[in-house]
Amino acid sequence: MKALVFESGRAAVREVRQPVPRPGFALVRVIASGICNTDLELRRGYHGFSGIPGHEFVGRVEGPAGSAWLGKRVVGEINLACGRCDWCRRGLGRHCPKRTVLGIVKHPGAHAEYMTLPETNLHEVPREISDDEAVFVEPLAAACEVLEQVEVGPGTRAAVLGAGKLGTLVAAVLENAGAKTRLLGRRSQARLASFDLVVEATGSPEGMPRALRLVRPRGTVVWKSTHRAPARFDAAPLVVNEITLIGSRCGRFEPALDLLRRRKVDVGRLLSAQFPLSRAVRALTEAARLGVRKVILRPR
Amino acid sequence: MKALVFESGRAAVREVRQPVPRPGFALVRVIASGICNTDLELRRGYHGFSGIPGHEFVGRVEGPAGSAWLGKRVVGEINLACGRCDWCRRGLGRHCPKRTVLGIVKHPGAHAEYMTLPETNLHEVPREISDDEAVFVEPLAAACEVLEQVEVGPGTRAAVLGAGKLGTLVAAVLENAGAKTRLLGRRSQARLASFDLVVEATGSPEGMPRALRLVRPRGTVVWKSTHRAPARFDAAPLVVNEITLIGSRCGRFEPALDLLRRRKVDVGRLLSAQFPLSRAVRALTEAARLGVRKVILRPR
Repeated sequence: MKALVFESGRAAVREVRQPVPRPGFALVRVIASGICNTDLELRRGYHGFSGIPGHEFVGRVEGPAGSAWLGKRVVGEINLACGRCDWCRRGLGRHCPKRTVLGIVKHPGAHAEYMTLPETNLHEVPREISDDEAVFVEPLAAACEVLEQVEVGPGTRAAVLGAGKLGTLVAAVLENAGAKTRLLGRRSQARLASFDLVVEATGSPEGMPRALRLVRPRGTVVWKSTHRAPARFDAAPLVVNEITLIGSRCGRFEPALDLLRRRKVDVGRLLSAQFPLSRAVRALTEAARLGVRKVILRPR
Repeated sequence: MKALVFESGRAAVREVRQPVPRPGFALVRVIASGICNTDLELRRGYHGFSGIPGHEFVGRVEGPAGSAWLGKRVVGEINLACGRCDWCRRGLGRHCPKRTVLGIVKHPGAHAEYMTLPETNLHEVPREISDDEAVFVEPLAAACEVLEQVEVGPGTRAAVLGAGKLGTLVAAVLENAGAKTRLLGRRSQARLASFDLVVEATGSPEGMPRALRLVRPRGTVVWKSTHRAPARFDAAPLVVNEITLIGSRCGRFEPALDLLRRRKVDVGRLLSAQFPLSRAVRALTEAARLGVRKVILRPR
């Protein structure tokens, strides 16, 4: 099958062997996959990655024979947990220390014609949600995660730093939860120390110091960006103003599927371009351009 | 009167004018004052400080005539709030943006024969608490603040980084709240990712990366140190493991007074030396030596 492969900082579309699902796994034919900033970071060497990237996808289950999932259109949670440790038993497989991660840590990803994933990771996509929209389930789930970590409601004054894909989704999710939300780009002005909640989704090391200036004393900063460079900021305001800083990563898929099904979040306007999988290297270049939002790959 | 004065990075004991209490303020004759690491940082230029340092004290109220506090032995909260802003109205004067801070921000401190403080900041010291113990009320209150920010109880696995004064007090407070607590010095070994709660009280920029290695996924790190140097650490583990990082500063005095009165925390073993105020410069040198804990000044 065709797949995008990263190796030693280089990207190429190659013919590779089609994966064979292990027991409990499904074989998924990829319909569409989304290029995430994490993919661009993996290419630059984040996590020392080599292999097939891609963790945002929608696909159809084509195997194994006899699976209850056969023929279903699915999206899938990206963490492959061991299922046996304390974390897994508490329903927090996303933090399982032995986990692999689709297209990120030791499990081949979705920028390919076929991929495998444990059946327990799969979610059927309701027919109200199009293929293009379904590709956004994973990043929208990551945006929804903020609501599981921080109490948000009417009266919450929220700012989201970074008007990229993730920032835009987070802002939509917060708005939908009732928060008075401002999405702040690099040059947006805002009053200092005036927000109850600031979500840092800039992907840049400058985001955190700015977040700490905008949040009110005793407020909360949610940190969504992972950078390769160590973060550097003056710790004193965090201590003196007793800020709560919460790291935030992936989320459960159910709330995201629900928001899309009820058409509460419009992800269509985040779609910048579509490329065939064979032109994936060109698509990566396009995705890396400033101002470009989601770029989607289609195997066929 | 005699006072310790910092100016442009230099420290000296000098004769200065005795302060006159403004309306609503009490005149306090200092019985004893404690040297805090913050004093040592102020001397090195933190906050661009100049003036009389000192914010840990026990004293006796000697004015103004007619005050209901006359003759009482007191300790005092260090933040002088405006009393009128939103923060003050919500009972969070410790975060009042117009506040001054005893011996730290624009209000002369306690390393002197006399000082003033708003009567609303004062707490009478129960007779069960000695003068030496009372000097620890302020730092013990800062330690107790952790309990107001994080749920701690039997079953909590806690680590405190930094076996100095603050770290030792925090560990005692956590133990007392039922947490299984380890106080970790610079070379102490501990299993990675094994603590629900890590309190960073090292006063060193290396503390935070270590805290992030020791806390379990979804655990909490409380940040107690303020450094002059910007903190620098790899943000990725914070995001990937969804750590909550909480800045923590001063606390309310009531819980600290209560712990001391009921003899739940033994602060006596934290007392390293006492000096007369006239030898305060020598006392600062002593307080800065590695392994030295609390150094107390006595005006007479």
